[in-house]
Amino acid sequence: MRTIHLIGIGAGDPEHITVQAVNRLNEVDVFFLLDKGDAKKDLVDARLAILERYVAQPRYRVVRAVDADRDRTPANYRETVAEWHGRRADLYEGLFRDELRDGQVGAVLCWGDPTLYDNTIAVIEDVRRRGHVEFDYTVVPGVSSVSALVAAHRISLNQIGAPVLVTTGRRLAADGFPDDVDDVVVMLDAHCAFTGLDDPDLDLYWGAYLGTPDELIAAGPLTEVAKTIPPLREQARERKGWIMDTYLLRRRKR
Amino acid sequence: MRTIHLIGIGAGDPEHITVQAVNRLNEVDVFFLLDKGDAKKDLVDARLAILERYVAQPRYRVVRAVDADRDRTPANYRETVAEWHGRRADLYEGLFRDELRDGQVGAVLCWGDPTLYDNTIAVIEDVRRRGHVEFDYTVVPGVSSVSALVAAHRISLNQIGAPVLVTTGRRLAADGFPDDVDDVVVMLDAHCAFTGLDDPDLDLYWGAYLGTPDELIAAGPLTEVAKTIPPLREQARERKGWIMDTYLLRRRKR
Repeated sequence: MRTIHLIGIGAGDPEHITVQAVNRLNEVDVFFLLDKGDAKKDLVDARLAILERYVAQPRYRVVRAVDADRDRTPANYRETVAEWHGRRADLYEGLFRDELRDGQVGAVLCWGDPTLYDNTIAVIEDVRRRGHVEFDYTVVPGVSSVSALVAAHRISLNQIGAPVLVTTGRRLAADGFPDDVDDVVVMLDAHCAFTGLDDPDLDLYWGAYLGTPDELIAAGPLTEVAKTIPPLREQARERKGWIMDTYLLRRRKR
Repeated sequence: MRTIHLIGIGAGDPEHITVQAVNRLNEVDVFFLLDKGDAKKDLVDARLAILERYVAQPRYRVVRAVDADRDRTPANYRETVAEWHGRRADLYEGLFRDELRDGQVGAVLCWGDPTLYDNTIAVIEDVRRRGHVEFDYTVVPGVSSVSALVAAHRISLNQIGAPVLVTTGRRLAADGFPDDVDDVVVMLDAHCAFTGLDDPDLDLYWGAYLGTPDELIAAGPLTEVAKTIPPLREQARERKGWIMDTYLLRRRKR
């Protein structure tokens, strides 16, 4: 039997890793690292730096492969993503079969928390269900970019006894700000969907490259920061070649 | 100037603590620990065990105080909670003033992630704004019980590109399951509000004492587990004297 650990490594700060994750890293024979191309080389380097820093007796191998790519502006979002999942499953299936012997331990390092807007769990579960390669797996939770965002702003995610909606830029753009929830976290927003809202009662708390030396944070009334964040974001993205950011929209008490 | 660290220690497993949190623990002169009475003695002991395990050179003091109590079945929820916040702020203000010298570092250990359904950040921000005791503070994010829950079930919190609502038992009981969101996390539910839903399309993923040797998890169609979880939960609560649990309700794809 092979074992695979899906390990959350936190959202940027190498010290956001948990003791449990560090212990798991030290059991691993083979780390599977999917490359997303030169632009995101920093993210690969950050994972390698974590191994260097936290693995006490390096006896592991790192197996790198080119990640399945996907259409970023698909006609049918769900279908395109499902097809992409399938190709990622093929990729992991081949890697587990060819690179991991019976009794060995493999791992995938997941940015942030593997349970939040990361498809690795679903893909690995698919590979397990196919049954072509026998293995068991565990999920090691991590500090999510959402926790890192609000901690950096020193605010709570929720207001007293109130709900919070976690959604995507795509959904915010399509559905607008909800009537019945005052706090909305937005993930995966490459197009600054908040600029499409024009609500004087909203505050925005934004963060990019959270927990890293490049961390950027900004907060204020939406009507003000909706003008300042997009150029700041675009400059940062051009400078580094990539950006990972998230934000909270909070309706002020009426 | 005094410094206060609000440190997330994870949701139960002492290994869910982050390296950043461990480093902060080691800078602390005084830990402030609010007692909630005998029933929750385990939670105090768990915090003391974390200090014993992770602080390399114990030169710290632990200052314990009786936590402000509140009416658990208030006529006006928000007002009662606001009043309770005020008394907690009085308590921390007195502790910081009397127990921490200028230049010293204090800390409050927060269960799970301090940014999620924990009022410590809001209370400490109130104390700072009052300006009677000068201090600065930082927030150290942690692994939340929500992440621990879904990791234990080896599922993602969200479905592909879809939103997630995080809410309370009180709100679920009042508002029912939303029409426009398929995944709902429920926190602070002492009354098993899920038993009030009668929806054959919902699955429930439940967990209590997550990450501890007492961990209980259960999952299945709501219509089935709505019968089995409440007695299981009640037995566990009676045995240990307290319970902390959370769950995810997921609408199956239609």
